[in-house]
Amino acid sequence: MEPYFEKYSLLAVKMEMNGMIDNRRGRPPRPESQPEEGQLEGRNALTEALRSGRTIDKVFIAAGDTDKGLQRLAAQAKEAGAVVVPVDRRKLDVMSVTHAHQGVIALAAAHDYVSIEDILAEAAARGENALIVICDELTDPHNLGAILRSAECAGAHGVIIPKRRSVGLTATVAKASAGALEYMKVARVGNVNAAIASLKKQGVWIFGAAAEGSVPMYQADFTGPTAIVIGNEGDGISPLVRKNCDAAVHIPMQGQISSLNASAAAAVLLYEAVRQRREG
Amino acid sequence: MEPYFEKYSLLAVKMEMNGMIDNRRGRPPRPESQPEEGQLEGRNALTEALRSGRTIDKVFIAAGDTDKGLQRLAAQAKEAGAVVVPVDRRKLDVMSVTHAHQGVIALAAAHDYVSIEDILAEAAARGENALIVICDELTDPHNLGAILRSAECAGAHGVIIPKRRSVGLTATVAKASAGALEYMKVARVGNVNAAIASLKKQGVWIFGAAAEGSVPMYQADFTGPTAIVIGNEGDGISPLVRKNCDAAVHIPMQGQISSLNASAAAAVLLYEAVRQRREG
Repeated sequence: MEPYFEKYSLLAVKMEMNGMIDNRRGRPPRPESQPEEGQLEGRNALTEALRSGRTIDKVFIAAGDTDKGLQRLAAQAKEAGAVVVPVDRRKLDVMSVTHAHQGVIALAAAHDYVSIEDILAEAAARGENALIVICDELTDPHNLGAILRSAECAGAHGVIIPKRRSVGLTATVAKASAGALEYMKVARVGNVNAAIASLKKQGVWIFGAAAEGSVPMYQADFTGPTAIVIGNEGDGISPLVRKNCDAAVHIPMQGQISSLNASAAAAVLLYEAVRQRREG
Repeated sequence: MEPYFEKYSLLAVKMEMNGMIDNRRGRPPRPESQPEEGQLEGRNALTEALRSGRTIDKVFIAAGDTDKGLQRLAAQAKEAGAVVVPVDRRKLDVMSVTHAHQGVIALAAAHDYVSIEDILAEAAARGENALIVICDELTDPHNLGAILRSAECAGAHGVIIPKRRSVGLTATVAKASAGALEYMKVARVGNVNAAIASLKKQGVWIFGAAAEGSVPMYQADFTGPTAIVIGNEGDGISPLVRKNCDAAVHIPMQGQISSLNASAAAAVLLYEAVRQRREG
């Protein structure tokens, strides 16, 4: 195993590079002539971005390229918090808009990230019990954008996303958030389970949203310090994360379908918290 | 004014033809090689579809084409419930996948429509007070699909959409509904205000969702026969429809952003109805 590379399917890469994702919904890839804002191509572009302190979500580099300069740049990006993903050079060719990628294409974040402590400090500053959404490996930027918007509307203090196997704060997410990204604190963590452990230590209750969760949302107490975990669009919350939740809550399903979509579920749970807090 | 033509912007046409819509979100058009399922090109395809009783949402015909056969076909489609929209022939050329459209491209619905009476009968059959969503000119198929899904999950009896200035039941809507379209009754009406008048006459209360609505959702009584009106993504509910609502309800906004997205708002209001009905 190379030290800072993670496994990454080419489909996931392509989806992410195109800033759109979720082929299950049949969305078409972005035409090559319309790159995602924040797509940086070539070594100089990435070097400059890192030098200026710009937040980089992901760096795709040509797999097997042994060039020392490229390896150094990748290490530097990782040091700065980026996830480095090796991909076939032909993939980079397809993704490239400038056709001069020099073996590296990076995605800059549309907004800076904060720490979990910043989110808890925000709740404290407002004199409120924390209300946080943890997005466990969401891949659809429209879902993440909609969740940021709903979280902002519900008065949540922050949203936590993982670094890996998750869409970052791309321009598409920013657009789908309808401006909420400007107001909402987003923390990007290396490990969701470690983040949950840290939140628990600081008195936050962790509620996992799961269709088969044993607690109906009306019986969950969202008035205390609360984090709501929303799972991946296809598979829900991952088993280990679920195990680490204090409770698995479900939204009552009155029809034939077994679940709401991720952003609808987040909105419903956030507003159940709003209701409980207004009454409480 | 030609008898069965409505005004329609070319952008709207293009968006609809591509089955994707909402340029504000920066979604790219569908590549030509991947047509929306249900896109019928040419006179024979439309003639056969009409003969077999297939539901046609929209028919785009070449503007200014005086061919009698084409005019007859358009009249026949309108008679069968389709909206007929004249567009520049070059637009048809761009939209065409087969490149043999003969001046006409039609969009077949992914599911049959029902009547408002069917929806009320469904509520009666279940022994429940009606719970209905009226979508006032939604243009984003992902929003309509998500609303169908949330409505199904919340146990609603039906969804009402207008024939014009609204996305129909395209394949993209069906996909975004994650199967809900198979279970959810959808009525397609020529005039939303007439539909509201008819519902009112049958004892249904009409609640318009509006950011500046005077009634907080917790104070609206959703336990009686209820229809919730969700407005267009950009402009909200149109003024006349709003005037015809019994009450304008708002979801409390706790942050800086003034509104949830259309499908999140629908989910939150539907689940407020679920909560009230479980308690009541």
